[in-house]
Amino acid sequence: MIAFDADDTLWHNESLFLDTQEKFRELLLQYQDAEWIDKKLYETEIRNLEHFGYGVKGFVLSMIETAIELTDGRISGSEIQTFVDFGKKMVAAPVEVLDGVQNTIEALSKTYPLMVITKGDLFEQETKVARSRLGHFFKHIEVVSEKIPASYQAVFKKYEIDSKRFMMVGNSLKSDVLPVLECGAHAVHVAYPTTWAHEQVDSKVLESIHFPKLDRIDQLPDLIQSMINQKI
Amino acid sequence: MIAFDADDTLWHNESLFLDTQEKFRELLLQYQDAEWIDKKLYETEIRNLEHFGYGVKGFVLSMIETAIELTDGRISGSEIQTFVDFGKKMVAAPVEVLDGVQNTIEALSKTYPLMVITKGDLFEQETKVARSRLGHFFKHIEVVSEKIPASYQAVFKKYEIDSKRFMMVGNSLKSDVLPVLECGAHAVHVAYPTTWAHEQVDSKVLESIHFPKLDRIDQLPDLIQSMINQKI
Repeated sequence: MIAFDADDTLWHNESLFLDTQEKFRELLLQYQDAEWIDKKLYETEIRNLEHFGYGVKGFVLSMIETAIELTDGRISGSEIQTFVDFGKKMVAAPVEVLDGVQNTIEALSKTYPLMVITKGDLFEQETKVARSRLGHFFKHIEVVSEKIPASYQAVFKKYEIDSKRFMMVGNSLKSDVLPVLECGAHAVHVAYPTTWAHEQVDSKVLESIHFPKLDRIDQLPDLIQSMINQKI
Repeated sequence: MIAFDADDTLWHNESLFLDTQEKFRELLLQYQDAEWIDKKLYETEIRNLEHFGYGVKGFVLSMIETAIELTDGRISGSEIQTFVDFGKKMVAAPVEVLDGVQNTIEALSKTYPLMVITKGDLFEQETKVARSRLGHFFKHIEVVSEKIPASYQAVFKKYEIDSKRFMMVGNSLKSDVLPVLECGAHAVHVAYPTTWAHEQVDSKVLESIHFPKLDRIDQLPDLIQSMINQKI
């Protein structure tokens, strides 16, 4: 079984948040400087994970709270409506499948059962899978609320997957690689240009851990072949 | 396999939304009359289902949009913060397990595999299962974005469930009973005092459809026994 992360592995996602954050920042520059806005928004997002989890709706609520805080409550209702509208646009934004994904997934699906394991908002992830037109290549779509070892163990149990015959492919070291290795399964890192600060991993943690790293997803079939040849 | 809906079947949920809506209404009575506020909020909620799905976060965003609309954008940031705080309180509210649920679930779990099938926000539903302390009675927890026949079919396929040996128990005719009967499985309605308007079913639809209706969930073991005796 080969499992893929979705956001920033199969399609662009972080860029959508960054673009929205840029528009948010521009609207608030009259009240505060850019650095302060970014810092406060990030702090609010992290604090709100506990209440709202991952996804666009939580992000919108964090933008609203940040804007209220930095204007001491003076921000107007109509400005706040703009942030809600940002959220609606994000949810409806075209799903931009990353270069090489379509061909790679199609090729691998002929030999291996594939699945998606993604964290975040169920509603948002399901609509993205549908709009990506990749859904039919995957045997299962699993949306989990956090990507920790226990979540992967639960998926293995649910689908009766042998962890030694499972490979996770994703762009987040924290979510897609480290917890999977901890479960005794295979993990492959595929680079994405930007990583949300919350997903970043201390470089020291990585020094002692070895796993394949790819620059592009279309290098995956060759990697898998060479792992089979070497009986890894 | 016996599957249970969660909100308003295992624990109170609609009452939490109604209580919050009452506080929302009180805060806005200075701008509009109660009837108009309720009507607009409901319209906004339904319109936003497409963008935000079910759950507390979407409800908060709908309260915010309604408040902006009915004050022509004059509502202040600090008033809007109050609505966000309502949401945080809702997400953290104690999960009030309904009368009879604990004993019924415990008793049935000794004979049957049980699962939960609930719609809504994955993050919110998972934390509620955890806080209800009922999680260990269930073999599977499935959160789906809509309860339509295709969602139930997908669950049957995923867990290799024979629809004839599956029973769904829930308070919503629209979500828990009608789509399940359509799949050729069994469904039992357990009454809950209030039903969200969006979940209500035209009484004419119900005239030609027959299924067991219970007033309380603790009547379920006897019902199942009598169905077995009658070989239904």
